[in-house]
Amino acid sequence: MRNTRQITQVVRLPVLSTAVAVVLAGSAAVTSGQENSAGPLLLKSQGSFFVGGETRHTDATTGTPGGFFFPNEDDIKVNQMYVQFQIPESDAHRVPVVMLHGCCLSGKTWETTPDGRMGWGEYFVRKSHAVYIPDQSSRARSGFDATTVNEVRLGTQPPSALPSIFIFGRKAAWELFRFGPAFPTAFSDQQFPVEAMDEFGKQVIPDLNATLPTPNPTFANLAALGVRVGGAVLMGHSESGFFPEEAALTDPEGVKGLISIEGVCSTTLTQPQIATLAKIPSLIIFGDHLADVPSVSGLWVGALNGCQQFVDQINAAGGDSQMLHLPVAGLFGNSHMLMQDKNNLQVADLILAWIERHVEGRHERGRH
Amino acid sequence: MRNTRQITQVVRLPVLSTAVAVVLAGSAAVTSGQENSAGPLLLKSQGSFFVGGETRHTDATTGTPGGFFFPNEDDIKVNQMYVQFQIPESDAHRVPVVMLHGCCLSGKTWETTPDGRMGWGEYFVRKSHAVYIPDQSSRARSGFDATTVNEVRLGTQPPSALPSIFIFGRKAAWELFRFGPAFPTAFSDQQFPVEAMDEFGKQVIPDLNATLPTPNPTFANLAALGVRVGGAVLMGHSESGFFPEEAALTDPEGVKGLISIEGVCSTTLTQPQIATLAKIPSLIIFGDHLADVPSVSGLWVGALNGCQQFVDQINAAGGDSQMLHLPVAGLFGNSHMLMQDKNNLQVADLILAWIERHVEGRHERGRH
Repeated sequence: MRNTRQITQVVRLPVLSTAVAVVLAGSAAVTSGQENSAGPLLLKSQGSFFVGGETRHTDATTGTPGGFFFPNEDDIKVNQMYVQFQIPESDAHRVPVVMLHGCCLSGKTWETTPDGRMGWGEYFVRKSHAVYIPDQSSRARSGFDATTVNEVRLGTQPPSALPSIFIFGRKAAWELFRFGPAFPTAFSDQQFPVEAMDEFGKQVIPDLNATLPTPNPTFANLAALGVRVGGAVLMGHSESGFFPEEAALTDPEGVKGLISIEGVCSTTLTQPQIATLAKIPSLIIFGDHLADVPSVSGLWVGALNGCQQFVDQINAAGGDSQMLHLPVAGLFGNSHMLMQDKNNLQVADLILAWIERHVEGRHERGRH
Repeated sequence: MRNTRQITQVVRLPVLSTAVAVVLAGSAAVTSGQENSAGPLLLKSQGSFFVGGETRHTDATTGTPGGFFFPNEDDIKVNQMYVQFQIPESDAHRVPVVMLHGCCLSGKTWETTPDGRMGWGEYFVRKSHAVYIPDQSSRARSGFDATTVNEVRLGTQPPSALPSIFIFGRKAAWELFRFGPAFPTAFSDQQFPVEAMDEFGKQVIPDLNATLPTPNPTFANLAALGVRVGGAVLMGHSESGFFPEEAALTDPEGVKGLISIEGVCSTTLTQPQIATLAKIPSLIIFGDHLADVPSVSGLWVGALNGCQQFVDQINAAGGDSQMLHLPVAGLFGNSHMLMQDKNNLQVADLILAWIERHVEGRHERGRH
């Protein structure tokens, strides 16, 4: 406990962000199942497309000797990234926002919450932003390179060649996502809708990033997406928390802002890399109870401290970077899945205000 | 060639459907990339949820001995089905429509076409139907049971236990989906946008149905979805062409209509099964060139004939079943991916008219 208290003091140190000064009263708009009390949604357009991807020749389109109906030899697509989008009728030149999910999840992250409320995808559209929601390369509707599994079945590769697929279990999610101090106990002030844990568990799907080449193609795909839409704020979460920065380091042209939610920041950036990132406004967000789950407190406190170092480096280089640690801003009980927490629209309002000030420059920029 | 002509005669035999009598002039509404000339879209609500799924205990949440950060032993979710939905502001009590994709594809099937036009999902919403788009259990955002792959990597199962994952290559897709007589030649009257073949290839993703138990959980999940939304027309395609009928045989309560597109119908139904299905209006749809791709002509002609037998059996039992073979109805050049063909909205209009007459009973029912 002594240790925990010490760590808690450390994590409460960061300076109060200017973004938290905005009014916290979020819209009460919610969806319950298929109901929606927020009123009709008016879209200019919607759809989906892919960015990136390469053609790859393979001898293992199935794991069945001789193939199935067609030979096992053919050309397939790998490393592409699926993107779903909605553009509001009233976009009024607001900056587009790309929302990228984390480990063992998909674009579902940003849709209806497990207990049936409105997700950030629709909420940002209602706030006049075009929203682009990808599935990471190798996840969900982006597909993955399954040839190695077939090759091992066919005997042309050994079992050791198989990817280690990361399947996130219920207990692991409960603790790593900080729903409570240990499964199945919840924090008394928990904002995550733990009563909908069963529904949440269904959106947790196998993570196949171990099948990807290095560097992860999602970095370049995110950068290409930013260019394609004429510039966007890139938002990452957890596993992908630092992907927006990785995308900007790949090609900063289409990156207008960087939002890293509960991720691990790089602490080994070179001066040229810092100089590149210092040209783009960035916001780092963490929820509550970072030090209060014994099995993962080291990870989360380390992540916060590493990201604070990133913020300090960017600002020392003349950039505009902010740390938004929610309990410091007066929001308590937020989990790792803060875009699905019961106060998710309050948190969204802080982000929307930050975008307006720091990316769109609609108000005088409040520097630290 | 003699053989092909004989088969062509066989496949043109089915009686002209009443549905084709409706005006064929489809809306010219298209989206080009992120543009949309169809005008704003007004939604009452949208979102996503899961149906089905079970909790499964596993010792292989990773393929790494000892696990990764957490032990390999945990509870995970399997067999759930992800469903995305949109409800138009003007739904006016039209029947909801569920659109289920086929092999090696996802819900993306029904979204923006590879060349950037509007897909059936949005088009049906614009025609006042609530639309529900699932990813099949074990596909895309529904996740899949990856434990066997990890077990083989860990050495607790032999390589022969691996699923044979079906990855659909470019040549195989070209021929099985009848874009032309042989890859890379296209039919001169081809309706599929073959110039966008590269973009199409990116939506073709690994099919993991080999990881599923028997019967396929998607059958019961589809039936549950129909009940959850208060009754719906179920539409299947290709691999899932007969899934609507399988769902109705699992539980007919929420099934108001059956649409099977380019699938393989069961020819071994029992009399009680036929009696159950005869209580629900059904529409079977096939495109053009069924006999004109040498590598797959037997498959497609057999599928058409098997489905004609189904139609005849249902009608002989007093049911209302129709065969809509598009070239017989005067629409030529349609591929297997007819929901993405250049005349996709014309084909959709035939289906919308069928739903109106045969499911909603808005006009006197035209029986055969």
